[in-house]
Amino acid sequence: MRKWVGHTGVVLALDGLPSGCRDPGCLEKLMPLFSGVKVGLPLLLREGPRLLRRVAEVAQSAGILRIADFKLADIGDVMSSSLEAIRDLGYDIAIAHAFVGVRGALEDLVVRARELGIEVLLVTSMSHEGSREFYDKHFREFLEVARELNVWGVVVPATRLHLVSEARKTMGGSVRILSPGVGVQGARYGTAICHGADYEIVGRSVIKAPDPLEAATRIVEEVERVVRSCRTSSA
Amino acid sequence: MRKWVGHTGVVLALDGLPSGCRDPGCLEKLMPLFSGVKVGLPLLLREGPRLLRRVAEVAQSAGILRIADFKLADIGDVMSSSLEAIRDLGYDIAIAHAFVGVRGALEDLVVRARELGIEVLLVTSMSHEGSREFYDKHFREFLEVARELNVWGVVVPATRLHLVSEARKTMGGSVRILSPGVGVQGARYGTAICHGADYEIVGRSVIKAPDPLEAATRIVEEVERVVRSCRTSSA
Repeated sequence: MRKWVGHTGVVLALDGLPSGCRDPGCLEKLMPLFSGVKVGLPLLLREGPRLLRRVAEVAQSAGILRIADFKLADIGDVMSSSLEAIRDLGYDIAIAHAFVGVRGALEDLVVRARELGIEVLLVTSMSHEGSREFYDKHFREFLEVARELNVWGVVVPATRLHLVSEARKTMGGSVRILSPGVGVQGARYGTAICHGADYEIVGRSVIKAPDPLEAATRIVEEVERVVRSCRTSSA
Repeated sequence: MRKWVGHTGVVLALDGLPSGCRDPGCLEKLMPLFSGVKVGLPLLLREGPRLLRRVAEVAQSAGILRIADFKLADIGDVMSSSLEAIRDLGYDIAIAHAFVGVRGALEDLVVRARELGIEVLLVTSMSHEGSREFYDKHFREFLEVARELNVWGVVVPATRLHLVSEARKTMGGSVRILSPGVGVQGARYGTAICHGADYEIVGRSVIKAPDPLEAATRIVEEVERVVRSCRTSSA
């Protein structure tokens, strides 16, 4: 069994602040329930870099992954500038789109990331229906790019479990697989990890819950229950 | 001849603040030289939403386009949240990536944009070399998506002038074409407009210049000179 950072295998996506959880100590209680936290563009646009820095500090105290998910998808120079700012805000992993290609884009990003001590997570498929229109047509090539660039991990959605299995088979055990798409987006908790993912990402199921702490506890327990069960049956 | 917003056909890309131009009145002098201003992720990460709001206010006073270039490339729900924040910061145009596909992504974005009174600009090709690896293989399909969704405009790089010509021919006169890639990235000033673009985007050539106002004036004059010359020779 792979070892998680933290003990749950669940990463919290913060695209906004939890509506039922605006008091100062709430993030401090919420984050240690997870293996990592992932901040997105809507949060940055609404709350600004200062809040992002605070989230990174709380995550660091909790000893969990700090993921900046701005889905970098630009020329190398612009992605590298973003990466420097991401590092300065206290994040240690940045998510980029494989679709922008290697030359003049991802190759520059990966070099700069190494200089800055940041890990790169590459999106290789997305959780929504439209991912089939263009993105998924290049799924195997994107895994090849991820391998060639030797990135820390790949994003493969829980809504396409066969792609999660394929990614694990193709990439071997050393690459991390993160899966969005569980909860509100329809995939069942725990199923992506059962198919080879390391971490599942939950967002709205927690941050839009009336009681985010209760929702987080329940979801993490459900993931653990499903994962225990699939591991027992495959043992 | 197409009518520009402003009088220059050049859009200023602010991925950082101009290094030679940090005094408070500098942006106020710089922006009216352009037809529009485009803010990007590195600026947001470094300076925060408050600075972005100020840029939008200055641009609005100058009567130029206010473009939020966060290269939206996410599921519909997340892009819509970003769009709401972008509108609240005072921007009237948002740039998104065509490769995320329509269902559950761009279709949601376009509906929300209409509700919010924001225009959408769709990236259909990029200026760097790696754009050929995946992006450009779907160029015609992306133009089809842009037409189907009836977006305000498309982004086609000045480093691929044949794609600019093709976009203009395919899309007709009513869709705006914005072209990055002139200046530091290698394409000659004015050439994208001569091939059918409405606006050329300059960034580093201005913001990294020792005297940004002088550089901006020189570049805008050069674009106008080249455009006059190609229009005379084709008349």
